[in-house]
Amino acid sequence: MPRTDLPFSRRLHDIEPFHVMELLRRSRELEAAGRDIIHMEVGEPDFGTPEPILEAATRFLATGNVHYTSGLGMPALREAIARFYADRFGLDIAPERIVVTPGASGALMLALAALTDPGDVWLMPDPTYPSNRHLVRAFEGRVRALPSDAAQAYQPTAAQVESAWCDRTRGLMVASPSNPTGTLIAPATLRALADGVRRRGGTLIVDEIYQGLTYGVAASTALAEADDAFVINSFSKYFGMTGWRLGWLVVPDGFAREIERLAQHFFIAASTVAQHAALAAFSPACMAVHEARRAEFSARRNVLLPALEALGFGVGTAPEGAFYIYADIRSLAPDCETLAHRLIEDAGVAATPGIDFGEFRCREHIRFAYTTGIDRLEAAVERIAGVLRG
Amino acid sequence: MPRTDLPFSRRLHDIEPFHVMELLRRSRELEAAGRDIIHMEVGEPDFGTPEPILEAATRFLATGNVHYTSGLGMPALREAIARFYADRFGLDIAPERIVVTPGASGALMLALAALTDPGDVWLMPDPTYPSNRHLVRAFEGRVRALPSDAAQAYQPTAAQVESAWCDRTRGLMVASPSNPTGTLIAPATLRALADGVRRRGGTLIVDEIYQGLTYGVAASTALAEADDAFVINSFSKYFGMTGWRLGWLVVPDGFAREIERLAQHFFIAASTVAQHAALAAFSPACMAVHEARRAEFSARRNVLLPALEALGFGVGTAPEGAFYIYADIRSLAPDCETLAHRLIEDAGVAATPGIDFGEFRCREHIRFAYTTGIDRLEAAVERIAGVLRG
Repeated sequence: MPRTDLPFSRRLHDIEPFHVMELLRRSRELEAAGRDIIHMEVGEPDFGTPEPILEAATRFLATGNVHYTSGLGMPALREAIARFYADRFGLDIAPERIVVTPGASGALMLALAALTDPGDVWLMPDPTYPSNRHLVRAFEGRVRALPSDAAQAYQPTAAQVESAWCDRTRGLMVASPSNPTGTLIAPATLRALADGVRRRGGTLIVDEIYQGLTYGVAASTALAEADDAFVINSFSKYFGMTGWRLGWLVVPDGFAREIERLAQHFFIAASTVAQHAALAAFSPACMAVHEARRAEFSARRNVLLPALEALGFGVGTAPEGAFYIYADIRSLAPDCETLAHRLIEDAGVAATPGIDFGEFRCREHIRFAYTTGIDRLEAAVERIAGVLRG
Repeated sequence: MPRTDLPFSRRLHDIEPFHVMELLRRSRELEAAGRDIIHMEVGEPDFGTPEPILEAATRFLATGNVHYTSGLGMPALREAIARFYADRFGLDIAPERIVVTPGASGALMLALAALTDPGDVWLMPDPTYPSNRHLVRAFEGRVRALPSDAAQAYQPTAAQVESAWCDRTRGLMVASPSNPTGTLIAPATLRALADGVRRRGGTLIVDEIYQGLTYGVAASTALAEADDAFVINSFSKYFGMTGWRLGWLVVPDGFAREIERLAQHFFIAASTVAQHAALAAFSPACMAVHEARRAEFSARRNVLLPALEALGFGVGTAPEGAFYIYADIRSLAPDCETLAHRLIEDAGVAATPGIDFGEFRCREHIRFAYTTGIDRLEAAVERIAGVLRG
């Protein structure tokens, strides 16, 4: 007899599902019934893992010795990541500051668990990636959202941080490039945000999961502006390794040993197979693959952005990174859910309703991912045009 | 200039390092100086990953499509795990009840995050695997330890659970086979524990990470006795996949959809490479490898157990599972740290001091792992004998 008396934690009640999941279920139904669905809701590159990474993993598997690594990651990989910061950004980041994690999710979990006491407040922009606020909740912290619209490139301002700060504020979380908006934080702005947070004794957490995927702007890192930030990165997006679940966290000097205790209990360690594979991700041959893919994303963006604007979608700030367009739908539909359902039912196009990303004007937005080829993006635009005209 | 004002959470202050890490550092120093160290502190099988699993992973990598899976895991793997329960234990566990996780650590984290509110109390035996109490702490719960000695096979009794239960008690966590003690919970005892917990409206979490590694006793699962338990399992130990980081959680009927929300935010999903590899772990060829290794562990235990007893180590209850002997050292040394240091310095043998596992008589115990070959175990016994005689 199934039990009905097992109470879940308040934490679990407070954590919402992704609304896009309902849409995905509907799109699978439609596909099962023979409909062609163009997927513009997917937050992962459509490309496979680059060949040199696959080869490195296969070579490693041939040894058969897939044992645990240290809780902070293999020394060779931590050194390779440190060299990446030196080669690409001219920064001297000691390998001892780098914690290899099971995906960027693991990095975010470590940072928040290490820095959050119950009732502590984290500032973050609204809209934001939903896991950010849910992981704060998971460790009994609270989120104070900073409403961020197109006029401020959907990023918080130093003035907002200043006026929102309270006794319990622990710090500020930002993302550059941002999911869902694809917007960046300019280095000078980042520095101003970091200075404000530091002045108040807080911590800055910067999500750089989409680092490297920028268009018309060089990739950058917050570490160039704020050496005391906690910086989260990932092998998933620019490096094309989503399903491997590997990311990293850069912490200030001397902090990794403290974090290691937490990493051991949370994860033991990140996947050894993924770590060996990732050693190949920085090779010149592999970087050439990553850059070719970046060029392809850039071309897609250059097709999709003007086409959406021509249809009446508002894009106040041109997204310069990631692979998302966060489009204002006010001139087209009463709210994002209505439009998302029309698009899936009538146009066979799946996109993510803004309500997955927060509350501030989120009903007025929809997120399109250009994680599918240009021919499909053009077909999607044509179908959406038909629906909006109809 | 490095900042010194970044406060870590109280959670991080409360979470202890593994004491064995200091010993490991010392053993690396000794090895660097040319000393031969016999490692009996290591909690992972010395065997590599079985060939059929490596082959399945290599075949999958050849496709290049290493994308995210569903947050609950690949349907094919969830079905394979369900078939494993049917084939091995004659149990009908619906695949919908199985959550594939990044290691058993991920499974434990999901269960505790889903079930623990701040201040909630979990009962567990002392000694226990240290991450159990630290993960309860991570989610702001509290642990009430149930002192468990050799006379009760280092496992809690129903009477202890009854007398320790309070208003805030959320449930009971047990492990069978147990780390560090290698002892099992007999099915009838498990049923009595489960009945007691259920009567009080609590939840039973059972760690079956070492399931399959039993000697002279058939493997069993708590699900045969308590269908409403949360059961944690792992591909690491019996299946030989430590470095892949893959485990699973079985939840009561209808609960997986709730857990999925948490899994998505914590992990997105478990490693896709590991999931494809694990599909091969249940094949007859692979099960034959697992069973051959079990026979080898059994042979090692049969050598080590009487040899340690002959040296004066106390083993009140013969361990019947895992690959550990939790030995009482009272007749040999004043406390576990003193002995562990003598063993590493004078005998070149690394073992884990009991204080890593709790407080109750833990200073009087040391854990030996038989994760190295019989020749090395025999050499270790000889060296230890020399030191104890000396």
